[in-house]
Amino acid sequence: MIDNAPADPIPIAQALIRCPSVTPVEGGALTVLEDLLRPMGFTCTRLRFGPPDAAVENLFARLGDGPPHFCYAGHTDVVPPGERGWDDSPFSGLVRNGLLYGRGACDMKGGIAAFLAGLADFLRANPHPRGSISLLITGDEEGPSIDGTAKVLEWMQANGQIPDMALVGEPTSKVTLGDTLKIGRRGSMTARITLHGTQGHSAYPQKADNPIHRLIRVLHRLTTEPLDAGSEWFEPSTLQVTGFDVGNAASNVIPGEARAMISIRFNDLHTSADIAARIQAALDAEDARADLAISVSGESFLTRNDAFVEGLQRAIHRATGRDARLDTGGGTSDARFIADYCPVAELGAVGATMHQVNEHAPVAELRDLASLYRAVLEELLP
Amino acid sequence: MIDNAPADPIPIAQALIRCPSVTPVEGGALTVLEDLLRPMGFTCTRLRFGPPDAAVENLFARLGDGPPHFCYAGHTDVVPPGERGWDDSPFSGLVRNGLLYGRGACDMKGGIAAFLAGLADFLRANPHPRGSISLLITGDEEGPSIDGTAKVLEWMQANGQIPDMALVGEPTSKVTLGDTLKIGRRGSMTARITLHGTQGHSAYPQKADNPIHRLIRVLHRLTTEPLDAGSEWFEPSTLQVTGFDVGNAASNVIPGEARAMISIRFNDLHTSADIAARIQAALDAEDARADLAISVSGESFLTRNDAFVEGLQRAIHRATGRDARLDTGGGTSDARFIADYCPVAELGAVGATMHQVNEHAPVAELRDLASLYRAVLEELLP
Repeated sequence: MIDNAPADPIPIAQALIRCPSVTPVEGGALTVLEDLLRPMGFTCTRLRFGPPDAAVENLFARLGDGPPHFCYAGHTDVVPPGERGWDDSPFSGLVRNGLLYGRGACDMKGGIAAFLAGLADFLRANPHPRGSISLLITGDEEGPSIDGTAKVLEWMQANGQIPDMALVGEPTSKVTLGDTLKIGRRGSMTARITLHGTQGHSAYPQKADNPIHRLIRVLHRLTTEPLDAGSEWFEPSTLQVTGFDVGNAASNVIPGEARAMISIRFNDLHTSADIAARIQAALDAEDARADLAISVSGESFLTRNDAFVEGLQRAIHRATGRDARLDTGGGTSDARFIADYCPVAELGAVGATMHQVNEHAPVAELRDLASLYRAVLEELLP
Repeated sequence: MIDNAPADPIPIAQALIRCPSVTPVEGGALTVLEDLLRPMGFTCTRLRFGPPDAAVENLFARLGDGPPHFCYAGHTDVVPPGERGWDDSPFSGLVRNGLLYGRGACDMKGGIAAFLAGLADFLRANPHPRGSISLLITGDEEGPSIDGTAKVLEWMQANGQIPDMALVGEPTSKVTLGDTLKIGRRGSMTARITLHGTQGHSAYPQKADNPIHRLIRVLHRLTTEPLDAGSEWFEPSTLQVTGFDVGNAASNVIPGEARAMISIRFNDLHTSADIAARIQAALDAEDARADLAISVSGESFLTRNDAFVEGLQRAIHRATGRDARLDTGGGTSDARFIADYCPVAELGAVGATMHQVNEHAPVAELRDLASLYRAVLEELLP
């Protein structure tokens, strides 16, 4: 009964791991995917963004053109393997004691392979599915994320390819597969303050204006009043001062300038704009002459589409027997870009060894993940 | 009546200025003094302290051996002239438009010359004065002040030469000669804090211990509660954070360590030990794991000897017609070392251009200062 055996994600994952696609290098990984998707009927479009001599490769593939349009999003680029400590080549794809080894085994070549296997099974059982299926695979998730998912989405919008729902396959399970379904992410931003005072001699502070004292008061204000106490779906927002520098060697000199760097993760009670205004207000409250530079990595988002989320929960329960906990923890992912266009959630393997030396994923887990992704397609495109 | 004309400090000041005694170089300046003092009957002792290849030269000279013993203290070393901007050589000693130019004209070769001239006049009128007179002249006041006055005082103590009262000739007048008599100085100390936290990712502050936040709380505590409101003779003590450094370039990393530098000037309500304890208490109150390094430049002192201070006030009034304001302002001077041994006060010229380019002193002021110092000797050794 070979024909009825489920498709195996392991050979696909191995083929991907053997492509040395350290961000931003494509390394052949997107070609591996194209070669699998075209025979299934997908129309594949390679999208290159960025400077001509250092363009990032991305892949958009779509099967069908009707609604509902389900999109699976992921990345084939991986973080550098690091200099040493690997038992085998980071690009070996070796299986040993039931574990698949290699950079990207968790994050997230293993996940993409599982989706491809689940997709193959789904299409074999449903040769003409309702709606349409697409894959948005970038080569710039681990890098600056400028010429990757964000640019592909702009292209998709310009070409009428925005999906009705999207699932990012990042490794989001915490302890066992399917225990967690991410339906939002905190926003992330950095604020840099340069506060100007008046230099002087420390023995005559009345003739100077100590910018360190003023900056201490500003930061004390910002760090002692919590941003919030958390919301229905989110932990409390966090604000961490990660830099404070003056560069003054003379103990008896009050310096003319002090600089601070602040890293903020914020939930759905905030936007980057209101947090920037809060920082400016703290500066104003201390009469600080200051330059404030804000850099936003992503706004917070929360997916409130019940049908989509409930479909995913049903799929998880059916494939794993687990009731996934809805979650919004963790850092940023490309889901932050997709959230601007359609409902998005994140569901993938347990990422215990992601970014580490000897990164690996259990073979059984990747196979279970393939079944889970097949169930997702069955629930969302019944 | 040439014989009755007062001695002129200007040629003495010129001879001293022409010795390029940039700290710690002697430059011949102490020899100029010895050549003037020996003919007046002084016993001169050159005292060399410090490493043999870089010893600092100092001079102790004494006339008579009985009480009361009055000591004039000063320094012949000068700060470097700086690279550019002088109209003439910094060591020219030129007189132009009634102003004597040169490095040290104010601080304090001009003052020493005025004392020598006043001393000569006093001894001509009083060939056998009551008590005894000494000069403590160092070549290490503008430098680290380690092998200068402090070491000479140790030698003086070991040799039974501690005076009953001492006058430091630093330029202490504010607007006009004799408007101010310094009877104390604030203490000065520096505290360096290295606060240890636990490094981590700024997205997960609960897994880290941000040393910047803790240091901000410590410094906020120290800078918002005044050390005191001033005392009878002193301005309020001051505490200025003059350094705060982390050296972390990654905005999403909570660093493991943060460092601060604090400069404190304290009045007679404090000792360096109680301020160090106050800083340690602030660290303890924030449960900070920290290294605290304290460096004390000098304790505060206040001269409470009424007879000495009143004698100086009478001399100032007689010589200048002014009622000197008793004062304890300004930075440190070698008086802080002398205060450990005997009553000490400071009285000298207006130091408007000290340490500046084209440093100069009015010829008339230096001559008035010579008269003032003669009056001091007349009042204190009547």
